[in-house]
Amino acid sequence: MEKWRRSERVVIITKYLLEKPNTLFSLNFFAELFQSAKSSISEDISIIRDVFREFTLGKVETLAGAGGGVIYSPLVGPREKDEFLQEIAEKLSDPSRILPGGYLYMTDIIFDARLAQKVGEIFAQHFIELEPEFVVTIETKGIPLALMTAKALNLPLVIIRDGSRVTEGSAVSLNYVTGSSRNIRTMSLARRALPTESRVVIIDDFMKAGGTAKGMVELLAEFKAEVLGIGVLVDTELPEQKLVPNYYSLLKLSKVDEIERKIMLHPHC
Amino acid sequence: MEKWRRSERVVIITKYLLEKPNTLFSLNFFAELFQSAKSSISEDISIIRDVFREFTLGKVETLAGAGGGVIYSPLVGPREKDEFLQEIAEKLSDPSRILPGGYLYMTDIIFDARLAQKVGEIFAQHFIELEPEFVVTIETKGIPLALMTAKALNLPLVIIRDGSRVTEGSAVSLNYVTGSSRNIRTMSLARRALPTESRVVIIDDFMKAGGTAKGMVELLAEFKAEVLGIGVLVDTELPEQKLVPNYYSLLKLSKVDEIERKIMLHPHC
Repeated sequence: MEKWRRSERVVIITKYLLEKPNTLFSLNFFAELFQSAKSSISEDISIIRDVFREFTLGKVETLAGAGGGVIYSPLVGPREKDEFLQEIAEKLSDPSRILPGGYLYMTDIIFDARLAQKVGEIFAQHFIELEPEFVVTIETKGIPLALMTAKALNLPLVIIRDGSRVTEGSAVSLNYVTGSSRNIRTMSLARRALPTESRVVIIDDFMKAGGTAKGMVELLAEFKAEVLGIGVLVDTELPEQKLVPNYYSLLKLSKVDEIERKIMLHPHC
Repeated sequence: MEKWRRSERVVIITKYLLEKPNTLFSLNFFAELFQSAKSSISEDISIIRDVFREFTLGKVETLAGAGGGVIYSPLVGPREKDEFLQEIAEKLSDPSRILPGGYLYMTDIIFDARLAQKVGEIFAQHFIELEPEFVVTIETKGIPLALMTAKALNLPLVIIRDGSRVTEGSAVSLNYVTGSSRNIRTMSLARRALPTESRVVIIDDFMKAGGTAKGMVELLAEFKAEVLGIGVLVDTELPEQKLVPNYYSLLKLSKVDEIERKIMLHPHC
């Protein structure tokens, strides 16, 4: 007789899969955990896979063979994605978010762990096919989105520092010009933070002219990294010509009107 | 007949609970989702509760009555916590982490999403009884741990900025002296980031003399906030007398010996 009932086993397996997205668990692992036959575990996993598919809660894949097992990948269905981005767009369009100088206050949204997690899952789903090895961002506001992307992809996160800090050993620094305000700034990345010739995706919160993104690409070139893609939560309609050729943005900011107190911001189609 | 089998329902309910820790779900919510009787849902939840307890995977509580429902709180059992902290301590004790000046390279550990999540769950479990309303940290390295603590507690995260930035509107700034290197620095917090008289916990990665923590407490006093507690991943044995009276630390750094290439770092008992 099985020690644990099916309804108990599926709860525990679900918990393990969700805690470690994009991580392979062997059937043996669960068979030993429950002192159960592999055939029973295999049926448990089929149930989880089918019901996740039915409710669009993520993808559960089984891999056959000796190196086989089960992997969970977060999945944000098209309808859920649309509704979610619409919800963020509405929150960000609140006129009380207009700051002096025509800036938009986004910090509370970016640092909301649940929203950040969902954004991270959307980025993960978009970039996973490119098989990145690292997620890269620049401090500060890119961090929550990049951390959640890294979590969903089961990858390490690498932080480019704004300025140059002493606590990370030898580092490569780059002076760059911010695309919009034309300020000269410095960014740096510790040598030990990223092996050379890594495959990376860049995640950030905001892109205007793309000067920061361009700087990151150039800094990463010093590490011989291959930049597979760039994901940002919000980009601006203007300037139309960005300093980086390709990127994936979720929301487009068309206008912040300080006088009329109006924000135009919408999900990308 | 029920549309969904028990083994299917418990998978979905588990997913909902884990995605939103410390959030109340009514039984009606699940009854409607599955077009199922509330009595069936109630039994489903009992199964989840019991098996979570059995495997020390978290606390599932049911609240009776009209406002009732079910809540999941992450729980890191004493043995799991010990093993986890021992694992981090060993990683951090690798002599290759010694940086010039006797600093310790911790960034990759702090920015590992899974380790950060576990640390966040340990902090959440420690501070939840104090009923905080906000988690507060200072950029940059405190962010992942604080974000994961906020997620586990289902609370907003507030970031104190290092320096003063233009993109967040009116802010309160404070000059403070770092406890160890005696540098004068500025930290600032946007007025809109935190309502006055909030109940907060402070989370950070590292504490040496406690100058930064003291600065945060003073800055938060300008917001009439009540600081219920301070949690740090690593504190140093010296100086013994910290600038803040009370805090909760997970790991103690006793020594970084640059010449002997030796690090002494252990979990707090």
